[in-house]
Amino acid sequence: MPVPDEHIHPVATGPAAAIVKAHSEPVDGGVTFYSGWFCPFVARVWITLEERKIPYHYVEINPYKKDPEFLKLNPKGLVPALEHHGKALYESLVLIDYIEDAFPDHPNSLLPPLSDPYGRAFARLWTDFISKSVIPTFFRLVQAQEDSARNTAREDFVKALKQLTEKRTGPFFLGEKLGLVDVAIAPWLERLYILEKHRGFKEDDVGQDFVEWKKAITSKESVKNVLSDREHYEEIYGRYLRDEAQSEAAKATRSGKAIP
Amino acid sequence: MPVPDEHIHPVATGPAAAIVKAHSEPVDGGVTFYSGWFCPFVARVWITLEERKIPYHYVEINPYKKDPEFLKLNPKGLVPALEHHGKALYESLVLIDYIEDAFPDHPNSLLPPLSDPYGRAFARLWTDFISKSVIPTFFRLVQAQEDSARNTAREDFVKALKQLTEKRTGPFFLGEKLGLVDVAIAPWLERLYILEKHRGFKEDDVGQDFVEWKKAITSKESVKNVLSDREHYEEIYGRYLRDEAQSEAAKATRSGKAIP
Repeated sequence: MPVPDEHIHPVATGPAAAIVKAHSEPVDGGVTFYSGWFCPFVARVWITLEERKIPYHYVEINPYKKDPEFLKLNPKGLVPALEHHGKALYESLVLIDYIEDAFPDHPNSLLPPLSDPYGRAFARLWTDFISKSVIPTFFRLVQAQEDSARNTAREDFVKALKQLTEKRTGPFFLGEKLGLVDVAIAPWLERLYILEKHRGFKEDDVGQDFVEWKKAITSKESVKNVLSDREHYEEIYGRYLRDEAQSEAAKATRSGKAIP
Repeated sequence: MPVPDEHIHPVATGPAAAIVKAHSEPVDGGVTFYSGWFCPFVARVWITLEERKIPYHYVEINPYKKDPEFLKLNPKGLVPALEHHGKALYESLVLIDYIEDAFPDHPNSLLPPLSDPYGRAFARLWTDFISKSVIPTFFRLVQAQEDSARNTAREDFVKALKQLTEKRTGPFFLGEKLGLVDVAIAPWLERLYILEKHRGFKEDDVGQDFVEWKKAITSKESVKNVLSDREHYEEIYGRYLRDEAQSEAAKATRSGKAIP
């Protein structure tokens, strides 16, 4: 039986198609970015590369096909992955930390400077909250098939977003600049319309502060640049909404396990 | 009904009692360390403070009692937590990063220097593997009640430890110095004897490299210093072995969810 997700639309479209084209050649000393245009975990790293204006070569990978060449780089076969100076790394948050460390003292750094260790830790703490409380609940809500499961997941999701938004300084999470927490959640904010359309989620239920925060993040060039056309996300999220998706996140959610 | 874990032995014993006594007074400009002597997540931070010789004030907290004063500092009411310059933080790996950033350029730093971004990312990647693959499987194995569940969990646990050990340089994970990956796994290595005694785990099944790595880590002063007497761990792990424990990790494992 074919893996359904193998047949996703093969390339980025919309605004993302333009930046893919602009990064289609290998860069001397630059980063090779192994991406999947549709993946929210990929989008975190992609936004970081765009925001920091790091020279990178974009390579589209279908993680469901497990290409042997790519498996040599990342034995998990998952995107996002980066290759830099001949060495490969993966895991979206590890990659953002790597970019911070490898390209330091940048005006668009996503973490507060080393002189503000509390600010850095505060950003890491609430990024951890996104990983453990926001994203699993997002997937649980999208994949929920019964009304009662949908209602519980929607309440949990609204509650988690409220808890997070309460810690925001504004306009971005830690003040005037787009930072780690904003980038960690940005791809799921871009996909909220799916929950609004199909799962009764309303951003007003989270509150006006959340609506403002979401607007600040989704108005950033770097966030908008990595988006493809909605029709192609809808094709993919149709599988999640019917609970048929075969991504690692989808399978983990279905079996009640942690997202790997 | 009383929460069973509320009645744990109230203070550290054995080697840990001596370092608790040595850190029983507040330190000007130093760290206040909110601890639970028995908790492996606490032990990661405690080892870091000891290894880095950070001045700290040790405060014992029973996280199952949810003391209102402590809840003001950490709304999750969980240890480990740190207070430094009047600000509080929690989550063991966030705290280790904080200590790295707040006390930089130390000879016993746990992360490679900023000049080695790949080394730092490699350490973060395999620490993430410990969080997602090693620790959940440890709890699954301890709490498994049926033979078939025990066998599956034991196989998964051995496999995860093998995968991790394959990436080790030796004697420690990244070479000559105790580092982040070593500290992230150390408290569970100190508790392996429980799996050996009650769940048929044998460290030889993981391989000689693992046995050597474990010996290197558990021979470090900073790792040995934070240990209490085994009889008191056994009282606590008895509840896990009968699947009656009420910690957040135990409850999450029981319901098949991610450890918060």
